[in-house]
Amino acid sequence: MEKQKFNELLRKKAAELDEIIQSFLPAEEGLQKTVISAMNYSVLAGGKRLRPMLMLEAYRMCGGRGGEIEPFLAAVEMIHTYSLVHDDLPAMDNDSYRRGRETTWKVYGETMGILAGDGLLNLAFETALKAFDRVDGKDAEAMKRVAGALKTLAEKAGIRGMIGGQTADIEAEGRRESVTGEELLFIHRCKTAALIQASLTVGAILAGASEGQVEILEKCGEDLGIAFQIQDDILDVVGDSGELGKPVGSDAENHKQTYVTLCGLERAKEDVERYSKEAAALLGEFEADHSFLEQLFLTLIRRRR
Amino acid sequence: MEKQKFNELLRKKAAELDEIIQSFLPAEEGLQKTVISAMNYSVLAGGKRLRPMLMLEAYRMCGGRGGEIEPFLAAVEMIHTYSLVHDDLPAMDNDSYRRGRETTWKVYGETMGILAGDGLLNLAFETALKAFDRVDGKDAEAMKRVAGALKTLAEKAGIRGMIGGQTADIEAEGRRESVTGEELLFIHRCKTAALIQASLTVGAILAGASEGQVEILEKCGEDLGIAFQIQDDILDVVGDSGELGKPVGSDAENHKQTYVTLCGLERAKEDVERYSKEAAALLGEFEADHSFLEQLFLTLIRRRR
Repeated sequence: MEKQKFNELLRKKAAELDEIIQSFLPAEEGLQKTVISAMNYSVLAGGKRLRPMLMLEAYRMCGGRGGEIEPFLAAVEMIHTYSLVHDDLPAMDNDSYRRGRETTWKVYGETMGILAGDGLLNLAFETALKAFDRVDGKDAEAMKRVAGALKTLAEKAGIRGMIGGQTADIEAEGRRESVTGEELLFIHRCKTAALIQASLTVGAILAGASEGQVEILEKCGEDLGIAFQIQDDILDVVGDSGELGKPVGSDAENHKQTYVTLCGLERAKEDVERYSKEAAALLGEFEADHSFLEQLFLTLIRRRR
Repeated sequence: MEKQKFNELLRKKAAELDEIIQSFLPAEEGLQKTVISAMNYSVLAGGKRLRPMLMLEAYRMCGGRGGEIEPFLAAVEMIHTYSLVHDDLPAMDNDSYRRGRETTWKVYGETMGILAGDGLLNLAFETALKAFDRVDGKDAEAMKRVAGALKTLAEKAGIRGMIGGQTADIEAEGRRESVTGEELLFIHRCKTAALIQASLTVGAILAGASEGQVEILEKCGEDLGIAFQIQDDILDVVGDSGELGKPVGSDAENHKQTYVTLCGLERAKEDVERYSKEAAALLGEFEADHSFLEQLFLTLIRRRR
């Protein structure tokens, strides 16, 4: 696909996803209004919607055509957002800016920052559970698919996935000895790749893909997630703070070991390309059209924010 | 039931619940070991296991006899525990002791305190989802009951329930004007009663109770939760710090408006009795034996910790 046409399609799809995500956000009312405002502020900070986009593309590629995917699209973005809200807290990375706006705790205070993150994680499950109302309640197989998708999402977000990776990352930062390549890969795999894996596999599971197909997307998500995180490390060195919406060089300032400090910039760039291409090649196993998804994977190599 | 016999039974049931809860706790291993230790430390701090106990009793009273209740028993305790772990954080209540032990963030640091809470909330859903493996996957009705129980648990823990109540509580504390009776009831209803309601109704839903029965237990849980919270306010004035395992008088010290400051100690005591008895009376609607549950409700009037 031509680059311009791809970018137009990307914008259109992101706008559609924004609309779906917004339809699941709670009304800002009641005595608990402040936490809801803080939650909505966080979700509406304008991310790339990469995770829901991967989920929807995987769902379609595996033949999914129903509405039960929609609550999951919103849920995965809520989980991603809560992780950013908590990561930015003073007791964590102490970040004041993200995507060109003040972080949630900076606007709403530290207490509301904690509660907004909790609220989003909880709302993610409340929202995903709505998928049960969108399948035939007499169809045990359809309900099983929703239950399986929920399990995958919960596992990948938890201590064997995202939270586990964040823990290992913080512990590696806090100690004297430098992090090994193996540890860094564990961190990237859990902290970043796990939720990207969940996005692809939840889409596939809901669409009723075979176990073999789900496994391929699991591997695909791992490669893609690692590529994505290495690119993040690269952008912290060579990126433009205006485009990124946050200061660059923060990793170096925090003496944080990254893929770039460990392997050097050239090797890091090569590896982003290698992992992304590996991920794209795995899509060849699917007969249905996946040209957009493939191109999406490859743009990650060249992304600047 | 005689008081001594009841207390023995209470201890026995709590020990059984402890065993079930522990069976769902994760092994402390891997690069994410620290957060898992912090989570397990928090859950094993030795609470009363009131919520899982209410859940199991409601399940049995409504005719439930299966194993799909067990993951939910652990899940509700994990949600309750995560809320305590986050409430104790420096940016929230800044508490160093609970149940006679140092709070999670005091032992593991603030960062791990945040992550341990996140980990427990996420694990609660991971755990409850295991109930799907304990029902017949071909039985759509059984799967629907599990889905319904999950929805109730998620809603009552979320912004229209526990997190909403915590937000309103914090906002009331932070402002100049004193809290009204109506606001305080909203806070008690959301912050404390919601998860107690969830405990009773999740048990009923899983057991296949009628809508009418679930509604009765919803009202029952509300009365009981409010009674429980008023008793908490009373104990902060007249309790013994040794028995409570935490300092008393902290509400007064923080100039916190409570049911006692608003209505006076005598009225507060009367209302605990009234709400508890109302809750106990509602159990009369159930034909099955509920003598233990009724007595459990009434001991809340006299509880000293």
